Amino acid sequence: MADRHADKAPELDVVISSRVRLARNLDDYPFPFRMSNEQCRMVIERIKDAVFNSNNAMVKNYKFVDLQKLSPIDKQVLVERHLISPDLAEGQRECGAIISEDETISIMINEEDHLRVQCLFSGMQIDNAWQLCSKIGMVLEEKMDFAFNGNNGYLTCCPTNIGTGIRASVMLHLPALVMTGYIRNILEACSKVGVAVRGIYGENSEASGNMFQISNQVTLGQAEEEIIAGITNIASQIIEQEKTLRNEMYKQNAFRFEDRVYRSYGIFINARIMTSEECLKLLSDVRLGVDVGIIKDISVETLNELMILIQPANLQKVMRKPLNAGERDVKRAELIRSRLCKDNQL
Amino acid sequence: MADRHADKAPELDVVISSRVRLARNLDDYPFPFRMSNEQCRMVIERIKDAVFNSNNAMVKNYKFVDLQKLSPIDKQVLVERHLISPDLAEGQRECGAIISEDETISIMINEEDHLRVQCLFSGMQIDNAWQLCSKIGMVLEEKMDFAFNGNNGYLTCCPTNIGTGIRASVMLHLPALVMTGYIRNILEACSKVGVAVRGIYGENSEASGNMFQISNQVTLGQAEEEIIAGITNIASQIIEQEKTLRNEMYKQNAFRFEDRVYRSYGIFINARIMTSEECLKLLSDVRLGVDVGIIKDISVETLNELMILIQPANLQKVMRKPLNAGERDVKRAELIRSRLCKDNQL
Repeated sequence: MADRHADKAPELDVVISSRVRLARNLDDYPFPFRMSNEQCRMVIERIKDAVFNSNNAMVKNYKFVDLQKLSPIDKQVLVERHLISPDLAEGQRECGAIISEDETISIMINEEDHLRVQCLFSGMQIDNAWQLCSKIGMVLEEKMDFAFNGNNGYLTCCPTNIGTGIRASVMLHLPALVMTGYIRNILEACSKVGVAVRGIYGENSEASGNMFQISNQVTLGQAEEEIIAGITNIASQIIEQEKTLRNEMYKQNAFRFEDRVYRSYGIFINARIMTSEECLKLLSDVRLGVDVGIIKDISVETLNELMILIQPANLQKVMRKPLNAGERDVKRAELIRSRLCKDNQL
Repeated sequence: MADRHADKAPELDVVISSRVRLARNLDDYPFPFRMSNEQCRMVIERIKDAVFNSNNAMVKNYKFVDLQKLSPIDKQVLVERHLISPDLAEGQRECGAIISEDETISIMINEEDHLRVQCLFSGMQIDNAWQLCSKIGMVLEEKMDFAFNGNNGYLTCCPTNIGTGIRASVMLHLPALVMTGYIRNILEACSKVGVAVRGIYGENSEASGNMFQISNQVTLGQAEEEIIAGITNIASQIIEQEKTLRNEMYKQNAFRFEDRVYRSYGIFINARIMTSEECLKLLSDVRLGVDVGIIKDISVETLNELMILIQPANLQKVMRKPLNAGERDVKRAELIRSRLCKDNQL
């Protein structure tokens, strides 16, 4: 069965994760930004009821997270784990999230839309993510009426989401495309075919650590399957190019390739102070080394886990205490060593 | 007994080596630059005879090296090991060297002067080096007449060596003085008191890897013991300042200090391509880490050995084949890994 942390997720050497999210709104409430607190609470209850009182086996092992009751750091933990959006964490209104235990599924309530259903899988599993997301959408639709218009499809707060309400995205690790400069061609090509390219943390975030998130820009006028197929197609081409370039670079000058990987590895496991920005940069080289088989004693799963744990809020959660930026840089380096040493002992 | 590679040489955490050399000329030959080939050969034979037919126990385990018969790479090996000067290696005339098995003693024949006797010890052993050098000088003087003038002392080709003919030098590793910028004050102070400061390979060489060689500039008008005492005194003050600064820097920000050391260590033992310039830079940080006790599984002796083996000619000697610059950078990284892994297994 599809699992976020599946050992054998496809294309794990280039694709970090695949994500599909559905935007839906109840037809008997205004969009969130126009709702009263009372209405917000009622929407939250309606959706909780629909999820927790469903008889569908799929919906077990969820927990409801009341954003009003979370500390800023706990909210940020969820943002860094890609379980809620920065907007939801800012909490301009009463809102919440329903999150599955394995973190594959997250249902945001009263973000820009009443409902944002997200399914997140590791590797290239955009189809699995879509299947699960669609199924959850249908289960919920059995319990409530969504705002829908025969001409346009599902109605959403922002016009860019009207229609299917789908956003399908794939997080790609593209070091070879960046090193060779070919990433520029990719970015151009994507914008021409209506595919958005963003950094790790969505809109306005930079492409740290050679990570690029590609997603569909338009949700109107295409069937869900067409959107999924479109993103899958683009992603496959990029993955192919990235892999070809990696092989070419490695063949062309193995020592230089290994030198880059091992230097970053050496710093990564030895540094005593490390910013998250540098950490993502080094992680990219180390991941590349693991992907092409130069580094054998570290798993991709460990690197994926580290990529989240080194973020400020998660780091403080792991260390069980508040840390200022300087302290985090020290503890981040400590965490990396402890995780990779554990990994080495396996 | 004093030994070049003594385990417990004094001040080994700041002083790499101590060296004393004596310049002497036979009184019945012109200075080398004015000698015929025939005269050069005769001087070589005279000095060989004096050394090898000496009854003094001190002079056993020497070998004579005929510079004319050495390949350029073998000459460079000796230069890098500080056993002969670059000038002797260039070989503008017939010349040679008599070198003790432990490489503590090297007697150059027909360099700028007929005789250059050098004693090289690890750590702060300038007194031991002087004692041994002086003893060899006396043994030789029993067998031949040196050019000597009652007013000036020993006569030498270059006026700066006239008098005692002594140059006493100490090779210091001064990372903390460099990092803090205080090295400028040291350099100024040295020039004021007639102490020369040079890089690893003598005159005109840069201070790579935070290595500085200090030596007396004047040999005339001072007794040998005064010269030795003067250099010892200056060196002691510099050593003291370096140690104080190291402690202060470490106390002030232990994480930053360790971070610097460990990053260099990480690159040092992981890189696959390394120039000798970068190698000396990293060696400096690693040595500092060993000196202050951060890095425990590497010995200073191993680092001293590496500092020589990573030089171009010695590297080719170790690898037993000619290597171009690019190949050397790869083999240098390989050598470091193999040496430090061996060290780690101890």
